[in-house]
Amino acid sequence: MKKGIDHHQIGESVDQYLLIKNAKKGIASNGKPFLTLHVSDKSGEIEAKMWGVTPEDETKYSSGTIVHIQGDVQDFRGMRQLRLKTIRPAGGLEQSRTEDFLPSAPLGREEMLEKVNQYLFEMSNAKLQRITRHLFKKHQQDFSVSPAATKNHHEFVSGLLYHVLSMLELSRSISDLYPTLDKDLLYAGVILHDMAKVRELSGPMATQYTLEGKLIGHISMMSSEVDEAAKELGIEGEEVLVLQHLILSHHSKGEWGSPKPPMVREAEILHMIDNIDAKMNMMDRALERAAPGEFTERIFAMDQRSFYKPTFTI
Amino acid sequence: MKKGIDHHQIGESVDQYLLIKNAKKGIASNGKPFLTLHVSDKSGEIEAKMWGVTPEDETKYSSGTIVHIQGDVQDFRGMRQLRLKTIRPAGGLEQSRTEDFLPSAPLGREEMLEKVNQYLFEMSNAKLQRITRHLFKKHQQDFSVSPAATKNHHEFVSGLLYHVLSMLELSRSISDLYPTLDKDLLYAGVILHDMAKVRELSGPMATQYTLEGKLIGHISMMSSEVDEAAKELGIEGEEVLVLQHLILSHHSKGEWGSPKPPMVREAEILHMIDNIDAKMNMMDRALERAAPGEFTERIFAMDQRSFYKPTFTI
Amino acid sequence: MKKGIDHHQIGESVDQYLLIKNAKKGIASNGKPFLTLHVSDKSGEIEAKMWGVTPEDETKYSSGTIVHIQGDVQDFRGMRQLRLKTIRPAGGLEQSRTEDFLPSAPLGREEMLEKVNQYLFEMSNAKLQRITRHLFKKHQQDFSVSPAATKNHHEFVSGLLYHVLSMLELSRSISDLYPTLDKDLLYAGVILHDMAKVRELSGPMATQYTLEGKLIGHISMMSSEVDEAAKELGIEGEEVLVLQHLILSHHSKGEWGSPKPPMVREAEILHMIDNIDAKMNMMDRALERAAPGEFTERIFAMDQRSFYKPTFTI
Amino acid sequence: MKKGIDHHQIGESVDQYLLIKNAKKGIASNGKPFLTLHVSDKSGEIEAKMWGVTPEDETKYSSGTIVHIQGDVQDFRGMRQLRLKTIRPAGGLEQSRTEDFLPSAPLGREEMLEKVNQYLFEMSNAKLQRITRHLFKKHQQDFSVSPAATKNHHEFVSGLLYHVLSMLELSRSISDLYPTLDKDLLYAGVILHDMAKVRELSGPMATQYTLEGKLIGHISMMSSEVDEAAKELGIEGEEVLVLQHLILSHHSKGEWGSPKPPMVREAEILHMIDNIDAKMNMMDRALERAAPGEFTERIFAMDQRSFYKPTFTI
Amino acid sequence: MKKGIDHHQIGESVDQYLLIKNAKKGIASNGKPFLTLHVSDKSGEIEAKMWGVTPEDETKYSSGTIVHIQGDVQDFRGMRQLRLKTIRPAGGLEQSRTEDFLPSAPLGREEMLEKVNQYLFEMSNAKLQRITRHLFKKHQQDFSVSPAATKNHHEFVSGLLYHVLSMLELSRSISDLYPTLDKDLLYAGVILHDMAKVRELSGPMATQYTLEGKLIGHISMMSSEVDEAAKELGIEGEEVLVLQHLILSHHSKGEWGSPKPPMVREAEILHMIDNIDAKMNMMDRALERAAPGEFTERIFAMDQRSFYKPTFTI
Amino acid sequence: MKKGIDHHQIGESVDQYLLIKNAKKGIASNGKPFLTLHVSDKSGEIEAKMWGVTPEDETKYSSGTIVHIQGDVQDFRGMRQLRLKTIRPAGGLEQSRTEDFLPSAPLGREEMLEKVNQYLFEMSNAKLQRITRHLFKKHQQDFSVSPAATKNHHEFVSGLLYHVLSMLELSRSISDLYPTLDKDLLYAGVILHDMAKVRELSGPMATQYTLEGKLIGHISMMSSEVDEAAKELGIEGEEVLVLQHLILSHHSKGEWGSPKPPMVREAEILHMIDNIDAKMNMMDRALERAAPGEFTERIFAMDQRSFYKPTFTI
Repeated sequence: MKKGIDHHQIGESVDQYLLIKNAKKGIASNGKPFLTLHVSDKSGEIEAKMWGVTPEDETKYSSGTIVHIQGDVQDFRGMRQLRLKTIRPAGGLEQSRTEDFLPSAPLGREEMLEKVNQYLFEMSNAKLQRITRHLFKKHQQDFSVSPAATKNHHEFVSGLLYHVLSMLELSRSISDLYPTLDKDLLYAGVILHDMAKVRELSGPMATQYTLEGKLIGHISMMSSEVDEAAKELGIEGEEVLVLQHLILSHHSKGEWGSPKPPMVREAEILHMIDNIDAKMNMMDRALERAAPGEFTERIFAMDQRSFYKPTFTI
Repeated sequence: MKKGIDHHQIGESVDQYLLIKNAKKGIASNGKPFLTLHVSDKSGEIEAKMWGVTPEDETKYSSGTIVHIQGDVQDFRGMRQLRLKTIRPAGGLEQSRTEDFLPSAPLGREEMLEKVNQYLFEMSNAKLQRITRHLFKKHQQDFSVSPAATKNHHEFVSGLLYHVLSMLELSRSISDLYPTLDKDLLYAGVILHDMAKVRELSGPMATQYTLEGKLIGHISMMSSEVDEAAKELGIEGEEVLVLQHLILSHHSKGEWGSPKPPMVREAEILHMIDNIDAKMNMMDRALERAAPGEFTERIFAMDQRSFYKPTFTI
Repeated sequence: MKKGIDHHQIGESVDQYLLIKNAKKGIASNGKPFLTLHVSDKSGEIEAKMWGVTPEDETKYSSGTIVHIQGDVQDFRGMRQLRLKTIRPAGGLEQSRTEDFLPSAPLGREEMLEKVNQYLFEMSNAKLQRITRHLFKKHQQDFSVSPAATKNHHEFVSGLLYHVLSMLELSRSISDLYPTLDKDLLYAGVILHDMAKVRELSGPMATQYTLEGKLIGHISMMSSEVDEAAKELGIEGEEVLVLQHLILSHHSKGEWGSPKPPMVREAEILHMIDNIDAKMNMMDRALERAAPGEFTERIFAMDQRSFYKPTFTI
Repeated sequence: MKKGIDHHQIGESVDQYLLIKNAKKGIASNGKPFLTLHVSDKSGEIEAKMWGVTPEDETKYSSGTIVHIQGDVQDFRGMRQLRLKTIRPAGGLEQSRTEDFLPSAPLGREEMLEKVNQYLFEMSNAKLQRITRHLFKKHQQDFSVSPAATKNHHEFVSGLLYHVLSMLELSRSISDLYPTLDKDLLYAGVILHDMAKVRELSGPMATQYTLEGKLIGHISMMSSEVDEAAKELGIEGEEVLVLQHLILSHHSKGEWGSPKPPMVREAEILHMIDNIDAKMNMMDRALERAAPGEFTERIFAMDQRSFYKPTFTI
Repeated sequence: MKKGIDHHQIGESVDQYLLIKNAKKGIASNGKPFLTLHVSDKSGEIEAKMWGVTPEDETKYSSGTIVHIQGDVQDFRGMRQLRLKTIRPAGGLEQSRTEDFLPSAPLGREEMLEKVNQYLFEMSNAKLQRITRHLFKKHQQDFSVSPAATKNHHEFVSGLLYHVLSMLELSRSISDLYPTLDKDLLYAGVILHDMAKVRELSGPMATQYTLEGKLIGHISMMSSEVDEAAKELGIEGEEVLVLQHLILSHHSKGEWGSPKPPMVREAEILHMIDNIDAKMNMMDRALERAAPGEFTERIFAMDQRSFYKPTFTI
Repeated sequence: MKKGIDHHQIGESVDQYLLIKNAKKGIASNGKPFLTLHVSDKSGEIEAKMWGVTPEDETKYSSGTIVHIQGDVQDFRGMRQLRLKTIRPAGGLEQSRTEDFLPSAPLGREEMLEKVNQYLFEMSNAKLQRITRHLFKKHQQDFSVSPAATKNHHEFVSGLLYHVLSMLELSRSISDLYPTLDKDLLYAGVILHDMAKVRELSGPMATQYTLEGKLIGHISMMSSEVDEAAKELGIEGEEVLVLQHLILSHHSKGEWGSPKPPMVREAEILHMIDNIDAKMNMMDRALERAAPGEFTERIFAMDQRSFYKPTFTI
């Protein structure tokens, strides 16, 4: 079986079907138009340049098109790039199969939803459970396919759900070690903290920020949703307030987007768990592409650091 | 007529009724308990120390009590302090007169409400006007007496309303000079930006932060209220989103409490108008107490700066 | 009548006379020389690239030449760019008409000078008035044509004078609302604060920093000028000192170029008024070029923010 | 059974034996000398002031003395303070029992050492295991009683060992969830990261920084020890280098004392695990002393934040 | 011969004449007035508290009075403090001898002036020499007695002149090692850089900031003086500009008070030489008072660092 | 005699032998491979682009090859660049002459080693001397050719030794002026502070960071070496500790790589001397290439500042 586009080394040739996730027009320094394509299969994505394009090419090779490409992988300023030799639209392939060409979470959507449900089931604080379940049901559809971000970490189909599930597992382990932590509060915080990304981002394909994403942001939107859900369900009490606080403070600092710093034990831990899972995801993916004895590319969201892959670890 | 407590110079004697706005117990370095009293009349407030207090004194001189005091004004580390010679509860004076001893805005409550109404009346964008009017009515009672803060600026009865009114006047002048500004949007932003301080603060007497004030904050609370008001009134459209954005961004930066920086022209101007009015209030009050040719006390919220009062200005 | 170069949309064709404000040689990545031209008419300016130039071209198309251009407007990395089809020097047009091709303030020079004079006339503090009038007369010629900056805001012919006039109007409005402000001091500060930009910058055409602009800066130069003017006019007293302070502190913070922070009420307000007018100018110009429902380009001097143009404002 | 000194509420009386952990002389504002005593039993410590002391008192009540105290617990500026009524040296009690009056880890020393040994036993990379075991044996004696710090977190007898053990447990859980982590490397890093605190701090009683602690610091000292241990054991290879890197980078940033930021996956995770355990310890102890519905004292090492104790958690 | 007040250890008794450099009234926590006296002899100064003072005492023990004191030196919060047993005005001692009780530079005024003249004499660039000599003559009187600061470094009689002389010697050595440096420019910069401190500070006794010191500052004042001196002497050319730049940039950064950063080689070196001499002065004086094997008090202007005095250095 | 490559002005032609110090492959925006060459002779280095290269070219023109080049010097974005007309390998020239084409220190290696030995000879503290001499001998070979950095300052053959020698001369001058400084300690600190750069960097040709350079860094490595040297030589005492401290703190702040700030007088001065010599080197080289009356290129490691070269200095 052929390996995916994400595993091609510099110098290897490519001959396969790929999806144009994103196509953007530019003007070369010689004055001629070109296209920057991000093409993907299940394994990941890669950038390709298409030089000297005609207006017809722009239409033919727009976002969402499945194409057949022959070419090879080059190094361009320390990043992999796909050099095109031939490219043609895969006319016969139906658009409904787009999903087969998008990178997605390593677990199935249904399996993950089922697992989250299991955590919901374990919660014993009725107020926290009812609010969380209500919002989980409300957004379940989008929540199950949304990426967690446009780039940096978990930026793939169902990335948000996968991120939440990993955090739930971390929450359980850490709560077992530190019994002063309120598991229910932590689970509720984990499940809801990023849920409004389904409104902040435009969805799993050609993902970008929506207008309300830019002007309001997922943190404020989700805090409002908890407030409204509580009113709708007739729930009162400190739980509502504290749950909103967990959501508002999960970026930890004002300069990172949180209007309040964590002032509740579980809020502090929620932030740290979020951090661990996001950073593990970024490091793992960068290190996967590096050979033992080498440094990775710089990771933008980790202070531009490169990570070294020791020769003695497996 | 006697002048108020705020106008007594160092060395002058005091002989008048005053309200204990705040009483706090401490332990002196000789091990004996004492009370730190903040006493006020209409003109302002001053700190006084009551040494060697008994448990009975603590009950007798608690917050909210009107007392008669004889003493004189001293300098204590660059701040004025009232030295007590005699103090006794003013038993015969009814508690309903508390308000007569609290500093308050220079304009009457009714007059100010009427003026704000006038601005509402001038608004022509129906969506913005209806949301603003709805929330103004909802909170009118508390809004008309709340201070704008616990300290720093406009920390007196009706201080919030007075602050909003000054900002409305600034808004009109500036919009007249820069016609690209949307007056309706600016007026709505000014009236609503701090309105949730009625929930963040505990009211005009012994003012402190509420639990939801600490954990959620007036910025997030007010953004939610606009969202809910719009739903309640059946209003949809970009106005709701942009109005929420003005509220969320009016502190301008993450480290000052805003989850989003201003990204709409009127949001930027709202922040600046807020700044001008707050700073004028702080500078005016500090300079009022300084003689020409002197520097004021340091103003905490203005980077600890002292301001000079020139001898040639009136 | 034809519309100006600033109002051409992407894709529209251009066929008109333009002034080369600035011409700079570069080497393309293929090793061949090219020219980056900034060409302008009254409405504004646009960048154009001229590929594969000869040494003769460099002479023929230098700064200050009026040319006739045919071409069209393209998008280049989010900025508008003019693609040249033909270009030729407009030999018959006399150089004295250069000014007709430079963007300039929306009001006439004489009208603005007259208005500033009106403000001078209103001042009642004789010391402040005499110093201000003296320096205004001294620099009147350059002051009436100088831009306020090389880029960012008011970077057009008479931009400095226009900026000062707007600030005077703001000063009047704000002083009317806050009667503790000394109008004379504020007017004097506004008129003089940036006046040494006539020495810091090289003038309205191909504007750049002078040597004394770089090594001394307009703030220190103007403070010295006030000192010398006072000596020349035989004026003594605190007014001189305080006026120098307003100039020295008008950038507010050390890291923004002010050796002293504002320590006089009018100095603080001068900084804020300067800020409002500069930011309104930047936002207005960026928003003018954006369609409703879109974000502007990033504004460099406003923390790289983009601004949204709501669909409901006019 | 009597409860310990750490559990006395404001107003409760005290009548028990206590150890003077620290005694410091001061001069009161009335010019008379006094002693600030930190007295402790197993449960924790509390501050007491002894007024008007004689030179004999200073000798009699020095650090390390066990005394009998009668008094009561007061509030002093938001901190608990013990007011002395009577105090006398507990002459008959032998000094060897000092340890009975010092707060210490909730687990026994031997039990903890045994558990760490278990983790060492699980390691399969021989190089990492031998270096770690070598240094663990070398410092075992001091390592088993040292506090982890002079204040802030784990500042009690065997605090360092307890901190390391908690971190080992966290390491196991997290490595189970993220299989790309090298467990051996992480365990080695956890066991060694703070080991040189046995040289940086003066021991469990009247803990202070040593000269080499101040001038060199535990991070640099431990990195050198790993280097020397490897040479002594004849071990070469990347393991030595990477293990030193984990130690050098475990404070994450230069401004927090690390000469290198984490550049290996396990180094990043080591920092985060260290952070979680330290913060849980600080939050737990502050919250233990707060009643439900109240905020804790400010926690210095967590940006001076106060934490809220919800009424609905147990 | 008796040793001076600066060399008394904790516990030693004092019996000598001292000058009250500064007297400030305060209110003790028991409500009674007291005086904080800074008393000095040639060797240095020390703080003393005078408890329970009468209004007569305040007059009798004001700044500038010479008194006879018996007492002893105590430790107060890590600082030395003089405890008064008896104090009386030294009526018979004439006020003209005040200077005998003020700490001053280790070299004589005349000797230092002569040495600076020598450096002036060595300068070969006539323009720089004439401006420097002109201003040196103009301020010679005050320049020869002024301290360099109110606190931190060289805060004694003739401290400014002593600081300048040390910097001249450093300049000569460094220029000898780096021949690209222009000695004349560096000497001129050193002599003038702080000269306006004679206007910024009120003189050697009870030193404080003047109004122009606070509102304008010595940096801006001196830059203006160079400008005016050049005009007066009819000197033109780049020397004037560059010399002003050296003065304006000698604090190196905006946040440290310089409106321009160094942009000329000698400006950068001037800043560094200033730094070395100021820091050597602060470290030397702190270390002089510490015993070998101990740390000094924290030095405020060096990031609050304490310095260690090794036992092996002499 | 022909002048070197570093002294060619824009527009001048080149016809000489040069060494390829570094060759790096890239992909042009037209998709074709090119080489970026850094070529050097004794006088310095310059960048050149080689367009449209074949796989054979890549082999032929790799790092370390001596080539003959004809071309001319151009301006590329404010930097000088060499445009190639012809290039061919200088087959007949033996590789052993590589050194003749590398920029190196202005003094000979042997002469400099001899001078450093002279300073060692002057040291009278036997402990400091023995440790320093031991490590100097150990690394002498590499130390005598290593550059001080990969870029910024002293990045040439023997740059490290030259840097150390200049600092020793500065140390002698400054210690002469400030006799409280311990010369031996300062000399030892200067000689050792950067010595581990022989391990951090890969040597004088195609210099890059080694793995231990990246993960450990020269500061930590050298501190360990001092520790081990002392043990090997059987030296004990505070000297070892303090010398390690000088090395650890010589970058002054955590964010610049030092795990401890200077806490010993000589440590503070070591940092300042290091700074002076590095900055003089950077400024001198930038100013050498600028004409009088012009500004230099921006110097990256000096806050991106440009320096002005006055017309009146020689």
